[in-house]
Amino acid sequence: MKIVVFGGDGFCGWPTALHLSAQGHEIVIVDNLVRRCADIELEVSSLTPISPISTRLEAWKEVSGRTIGFLNFDVAKEFDRITALFADFQPDAIVHFAEQRAAPYSMKSERHKRYTVSNNVEATHNVLCAIVESGRDIHVVHLGTMGVYGYGGGAAIPEGYLNIEVMSAEGRRVSREILYPADPGSVYHMTKTLDQLIFYYYNKNDRVRVTDLHQGVVWGTNTKETNSDPRLINRFDYDGDYGTVLNRFLMQAAVGYPLTVHGKGGQTRAFIHIQDTVRCVELALLNPPKRGARVQIFNQMTETHRVGELANIVSKLTGAKIQNLPNPRNEAPENDLIVEAKSLVELGLKPTRLESGLLREVVEVAERYADRCDRRRIPCTSVWRQDIDLSVGAKGGE
Amino acid sequence: MKIVVFGGDGFCGWPTALHLSAQGHEIVIVDNLVRRCADIELEVSSLTPISPISTRLEAWKEVSGRTIGFLNFDVAKEFDRITALFADFQPDAIVHFAEQRAAPYSMKSERHKRYTVSNNVEATHNVLCAIVESGRDIHVVHLGTMGVYGYGGGAAIPEGYLNIEVMSAEGRRVSREILYPADPGSVYHMTKTLDQLIFYYYNKNDRVRVTDLHQGVVWGTNTKETNSDPRLINRFDYDGDYGTVLNRFLMQAAVGYPLTVHGKGGQTRAFIHIQDTVRCVELALLNPPKRGARVQIFNQMTETHRVGELANIVSKLTGAKIQNLPNPRNEAPENDLIVEAKSLVELGLKPTRLESGLLREVVEVAERYADRCDRRRIPCTSVWRQDIDLSVGAKGGE
Repeated sequence: MKIVVFGGDGFCGWPTALHLSAQGHEIVIVDNLVRRCADIELEVSSLTPISPISTRLEAWKEVSGRTIGFLNFDVAKEFDRITALFADFQPDAIVHFAEQRAAPYSMKSERHKRYTVSNNVEATHNVLCAIVESGRDIHVVHLGTMGVYGYGGGAAIPEGYLNIEVMSAEGRRVSREILYPADPGSVYHMTKTLDQLIFYYYNKNDRVRVTDLHQGVVWGTNTKETNSDPRLINRFDYDGDYGTVLNRFLMQAAVGYPLTVHGKGGQTRAFIHIQDTVRCVELALLNPPKRGARVQIFNQMTETHRVGELANIVSKLTGAKIQNLPNPRNEAPENDLIVEAKSLVELGLKPTRLESGLLREVVEVAERYADRCDRRRIPCTSVWRQDIDLSVGAKGGE
Repeated sequence: MKIVVFGGDGFCGWPTALHLSAQGHEIVIVDNLVRRCADIELEVSSLTPISPISTRLEAWKEVSGRTIGFLNFDVAKEFDRITALFADFQPDAIVHFAEQRAAPYSMKSERHKRYTVSNNVEATHNVLCAIVESGRDIHVVHLGTMGVYGYGGGAAIPEGYLNIEVMSAEGRRVSREILYPADPGSVYHMTKTLDQLIFYYYNKNDRVRVTDLHQGVVWGTNTKETNSDPRLINRFDYDGDYGTVLNRFLMQAAVGYPLTVHGKGGQTRAFIHIQDTVRCVELALLNPPKRGARVQIFNQMTETHRVGELANIVSKLTGAKIQNLPNPRNEAPENDLIVEAKSLVELGLKPTRLESGLLREVVEVAERYADRCDRRRIPCTSVWRQDIDLSVGAKGGE
């Protein structure tokens, strides 16, 4: 299959591009390297020493004998480059990771909010609009998030759709299928709820085939392919903006920093290992919806945990202390979460479970690069509302 | 009240600004005059000879003794101008009309699709983001559309919200209030469904007070204030992109052009007269939601009609012939529509009904300026999908 990976230099995009290349697909990565620029802005680096993209691609050619193409351009701003690529390469499918993906980053300032909105909405819209222009039947696989549903209702989350009853014009109750209602908890999550409606519209009006993967929080750092050469190593984000909760705990344990639990840790989230992420994307590519079918939505996660529970697991495994900090987010202190996620398993996913061997592996990666950690970048400094005061609890925790 | 009218030079914005000024409010219009530029692009003019904005404002000062401020900038692109305005003028409320508002225009090409998305999403987001930055409690009144709901389901449309049942994590059925599900029928309508989620989020996270007016198709051209001096005259759009259905029929009758019904005319739409539009906006401004309350959504329409029915009414009134053309839109050939619209009436709206006197008045305006009509601009040339062929029925109709 010919596949374009938009955002193929990022934390999920890079291992996905390698995995798909290893499976024999012909891959072109499009990336403007903006994620690396965000590191410069935030004065932080990936804990793992990632190579420049050209070194990555050379190493992959040496290791695998396979070539991955690369184009540096901005999907949100350079529409004509997308249409030219579709005409030249004639892809069968695209994988769309080209979005700003950190909720805390999206909340840092008005500039970060506005960048996240314009980048994410225009990237998604450009990709769909370019597919329509191309006249080709290109399957879109998009990395969405479980977070579009919010965590307020303690709800059981189905795979994308819900049947409800509405009143007809004649006053009868009639059944109708709707997108499961959105309830975004940050500007970043809001952009993903906007994506859903853009997919809905282009699927309805232009019959674009779309699979939207509503992913949980990713943990782990390497996959089979990124482990095959040091120059292929994947990102490991540990900072308060881009670091995700379980990876942050594992890194904190490795460098002797207390595990930072925001609030009481009652938040339940869905999780997935990075190795399963790349496998899920492959399964989605191999199983597109039929032409004319609705947007296919899969919940891409393998288990749910409370944040505080995870801290306890990591603490037991490593002996690290736990520190409760004020929660910068505007969210319920605790929530339940039940997620229906049968589809990807039915398509062949063998879930990688959270177990001490794999957790230990991540700690070992973090220990190996512990001297690269800048401890000043560990705290989360973004706040969801100006009346949230991060200093109160920090004092309390001292 | 101090009010900023974003998009205050347009078809709804201009009469609204005058009406609010006449009621004694202090008004600043912000507009980049892009609607006038679209006329240049489309090689068409308002049927009525509208004055330049500075002439309009001078005339209003002469007629009423009142001053309306004016700033020319792009709400979607010049964020810092918005924050500066909020700091200087310290508005109590803003009215947000600063969006590309024609569905056919939004479907003309990839460039028009992308402009509509980036302009509308960024304008709405910038306004909300600037309110949060200002720290002020500024009430947003936004012109939305009934079209966010689509016309496919033959549904009875409530005012914004619907109670549904979802499964809780414990497996119980629990009641939940959601935004009435969106089902956009064009890229333009899609942007208005995105607006809804942006309002939802900023209301939830930052407690911004918002009233979203889901308006029907506007007809009529002048209001009490725009009639008070020829230099204050409002736009009258008759072209295939910006002209709305009833005004197009009335103008077509005036210039001896057959009434162009797309498809069989079975589409039911909601309608409102421009005089009621300005009154509804005023009522919304006078009745903001309480701080902390959800987004207030009003259906802003006074009656529903089938398009074919309207053509028959205008034909009987004027003797004009009816011509059925292929429908450029991707929509059901007919639909029912029942709209709940009590709120604005309860707040004091006295609905202006479709009656022959008022219809005749619009025909008279059109007759007065009939020599300004370029008949080549009457047909709608935008198509919703490349496989819709406008030439087929046009031939059949000749």
